[in-house]
Amino acid sequence: MASSTPKNPKPQPDRTRRSERSRQAILTAALDLIGESGYQRLTIEAIAARAGVGKQTIYRWWPSKAAVLLDAFVALGEEAADGGTELPDTGDLAADLKAVVRATVDELNSPRFDAPSRALAAESVVNPELCAQFTERVLEPQLELYVRRIRAAQEAGQADPDADPRTALELIVGPLAHRWLLRTLPLTHAYADAVVDLALRGLTPR
Amino acid sequence: MASSTPKNPKPQPDRTRRSERSRQAILTAALDLIGESGYQRLTIEAIAARAGVGKQTIYRWWPSKAAVLLDAFVALGEEAADGGTELPDTGDLAADLKAVVRATVDELNSPRFDAPSRALAAESVVNPELCAQFTERVLEPQLELYVRRIRAAQEAGQADPDADPRTALELIVGPLAHRWLLRTLPLTHAYADAVVDLALRGLTPR
Repeated sequence: MASSTPKNPKPQPDRTRRSERSRQAILTAALDLIGESGYQRLTIEAIAARAGVGKQTIYRWWPSKAAVLLDAFVALGEEAADGGTELPDTGDLAADLKAVVRATVDELNSPRFDAPSRALAAESVVNPELCAQFTERVLEPQLELYVRRIRAAQEAGQADPDADPRTALELIVGPLAHRWLLRTLPLTHAYADAVVDLALRGLTPR
Repeated sequence: MASSTPKNPKPQPDRTRRSERSRQAILTAALDLIGESGYQRLTIEAIAARAGVGKQTIYRWWPSKAAVLLDAFVALGEEAADGGTELPDTGDLAADLKAVVRATVDELNSPRFDAPSRALAAESVVNPELCAQFTERVLEPQLELYVRRIRAAQEAGQADPDADPRTALELIVGPLAHRWLLRTLPLTHAYADAVVDLALRGLTPR
């Protein structure tokens, strides 16, 4: 805003608005096309046609369709985000983790989320560059929230201070991802609760 | 063997041997090509050329390149298998699980295994039919071994009889798969041990 001059009062905001509209149209088109016919058949040409922009507009902002996919997924996550930047801390670690994991189950089971998130996961498994960007931009910030919540529980005496929070969160997130990715068994709230309970209690008798 | 007749003593074994040689050549060619240029660029034509067979030979046995991939992966697993059909049971659940999970870590980290298993996982994530065959033929029989070992531990008083063995094994296998698939952090023996220890002990203080 400070860079606008009296003679040409609002060039930047207009261009920015137009760019932002194109960007949104491109990401929405990519998500729709992935949902309709899958990521493997997705082309930059098809995204451009659906979004009503030129191919060059897409190539100016993204080097590949994988890069479009990642940004489309990030936009989808921002759409769904409830604005929270920390996990809940009611003082009850089990209840807080169950609330978060149940919400994750609902997201993983939602049709709007399914095709793009499966596409992104599948591509990340075989594409180390995309995977590195996905984990850095999307996954690790989420996992860090678990680490902070578990550390708070350790400080409050509700979690074993000798346990590694990173390993602990992977015992919760890993089973969910495994069941979702490989569709072994239904991903339900009951399963979310069972995973949290067993991760907290452990398999050996108390 | 009982079906061979005196006049034409060994037609079946000969044909079977030849078929088996072609089948092995096709699966080896598929694995090699996936390792060289990835599953997405794999074609039936390229497999046929590399294996020295006609395309029709491949189509006679497999309906798709995904089906070839699955059989190639199964063959690779049989090659690597040590012949065991049960997890070890020395009476020490933690030690036995660590031995198995460390071996899994070694397999996941082996270059020969990496490309085809990533290809199969990625394709399974977006291809429900292949995924169902993969879980039925490969994954679930392996998971069942964990269920049996955990049940034995419950019967021996070494594991909480109220714990669900299926959830328990997913707390061990899930984190391994998550770390391997998304390359978040190194997959090491130390991590294998940490996952088993935490799954047995639980996150809350004892």
